[in-house]
Amino acid sequence: MNILIIGGGGVIGQKLGRALAARGELRGKVISGITLADIVDPARIPGSAVPVKTVVCNIADPASVAKCVTADVDVIYLLAAVVSAHAEEDLDAGLSINMMGTLNVLQHARALGTRPVLVFTSSIAVNGGEVPQPFTDYTGLNPQTSYGAQKAIGELLVTDFSRRGLIDGRGFRLPTISIRPGKPNRAASGFMSSIFREPLQGRTANCPVSSDFNHYYLSPRKCVENLIKGAELPAEALGLNRCMPMPGRVWTIRQMIDAMTAVAGSGPARLISWEKQPGLDLILDGWRMDIRADKAESLGLEADASFEDNIRYFLEDDLPGA
Amino acid sequence: MNILIIGGGGVIGQKLGRALAARGELRGKVISGITLADIVDPARIPGSAVPVKTVVCNIADPASVAKCVTADVDVIYLLAAVVSAHAEEDLDAGLSINMMGTLNVLQHARALGTRPVLVFTSSIAVNGGEVPQPFTDYTGLNPQTSYGAQKAIGELLVTDFSRRGLIDGRGFRLPTISIRPGKPNRAASGFMSSIFREPLQGRTANCPVSSDFNHYYLSPRKCVENLIKGAELPAEALGLNRCMPMPGRVWTIRQMIDAMTAVAGSGPARLISWEKQPGLDLILDGWRMDIRADKAESLGLEADASFEDNIRYFLEDDLPGA
Repeated sequence: MNILIIGGGGVIGQKLGRALAARGELRGKVISGITLADIVDPARIPGSAVPVKTVVCNIADPASVAKCVTADVDVIYLLAAVVSAHAEEDLDAGLSINMMGTLNVLQHARALGTRPVLVFTSSIAVNGGEVPQPFTDYTGLNPQTSYGAQKAIGELLVTDFSRRGLIDGRGFRLPTISIRPGKPNRAASGFMSSIFREPLQGRTANCPVSSDFNHYYLSPRKCVENLIKGAELPAEALGLNRCMPMPGRVWTIRQMIDAMTAVAGSGPARLISWEKQPGLDLILDGWRMDIRADKAESLGLEADASFEDNIRYFLEDDLPGA
Repeated sequence: MNILIIGGGGVIGQKLGRALAARGELRGKVISGITLADIVDPARIPGSAVPVKTVVCNIADPASVAKCVTADVDVIYLLAAVVSAHAEEDLDAGLSINMMGTLNVLQHARALGTRPVLVFTSSIAVNGGEVPQPFTDYTGLNPQTSYGAQKAIGELLVTDFSRRGLIDGRGFRLPTISIRPGKPNRAASGFMSSIFREPLQGRTANCPVSSDFNHYYLSPRKCVENLIKGAELPAEALGLNRCMPMPGRVWTIRQMIDAMTAVAGSGPARLISWEKQPGLDLILDGWRMDIRADKAESLGLEADASFEDNIRYFLEDDLPGA
């Protein structure tokens, strides 16, 4: 069992690599190797008993994809993407990575002839527009960002390539991930992690929306667990649409801050400032959060039980010893 | 007002060109030129008072697209496609024409900097899969053919390019067009026209499904009227999703044959044979027909009033003097 994680240098890619290495098996088989591929050489996995390779890969370039989607790959995670604010600023970058890059990976996976399992990360940014909430497994996609449009295109490709028997694909629309460790990326949702991550480390952070802003969240730990479950699902369980929402939970900023206070005391919340960020509303207004992940839940994927859990997971996983 | 019809050599493209030439104006402006572009040099429009050019264009090739999407174009019709059975046989042809070709046209339209009106023909083949009927303006797309998947991708691109203000796009999911004149193409729906077209000209035809097979139809005449109305709609009327079903009507094969008999006597129906076609069910089973085109109807687009009308339109438009 060889696993390729494209986007293996990112927050979820790194955590997924570590979780798979610690687990040692997937789909009932011993993991013989993990390859982390990303646009810059990914960090290795310290102390892994499973051999881990890293490779530099630009999915927009078919020749580069050929170097990592090799004949020995059994399971491919396709996590690489140009994120929301970046894809909105630069349409061509988004088309090149999110649309053509996805097609390049699918075409190389198809060319293997082995029908590899491919786990695609879509996003709740596919939801929006004039489609009424709630968003179920059957509601239309009318994304109001280019990122969302490109992810929706990726979903159609994953489902069609799977229907044709060229790959065994499955795609999950990730909720907004919070608390995201590490440095901020260019996602418009960045503040939804930084207002916890930074104060929990004694640093200030700004919240650019009001405390009653609510949204659909998942912790990195549960996201990784769901991505592993997602790879293990048998093709027969997936039905005719290979892509679906991943379970998450809706919280207001206030509920999340209260959860931080319940777990870590009242100090961190005092490090949050509240200055509105011009232009951010334009992106966030197109987002939606009344999402019903019925299909994924029926397949065993799970949301967090509470945001207190998210805070604890962050402290345990990302600030050990703090 | 210069109009470019990509796919101008096809049945709808030719009829649209003739209708626009006869009309002489669009969006309140005199039509100064019509360009018919297609993969093979399209037929000209006999007796047109409007200057008509033809150009050979392969939308899969950006350089070829540049030759027809020129600075003087105000309205672009993008009708060109690899049709259902062909796209199912040859995935790469479908991706190249239906997905990349659409992107090429959008990118060139964007590059004009004039935000041209672009009318995209999608298809009811976007519907299907595990999404329950009826299909409204808000239901999800889970196409069960590569053609449907590629058209759904085109819709997402048209809406996103329009949202960004790069084009003024609008897309319509065409019902199955019946009665389609001329020669059969590679569409799986071919028989839905040939069982009327051929008998009405004294020739035999085969119906490969049972007489209670029902489906969602529109006459070529109404389709062209809707495509003209579609171009005339102001951007503000279109909302956040630029793509929608085009109105059609559901008929069984039996109802359609009865309509032919009502208009043309009992002779033609006797020229129909009833032999099942192996493999056709696999495609048709993925199609759906309970479609509610509420948005398009509210914008003034129309279905046929009866299938007797479809028969009469065919006799008037395609067999004049017969």
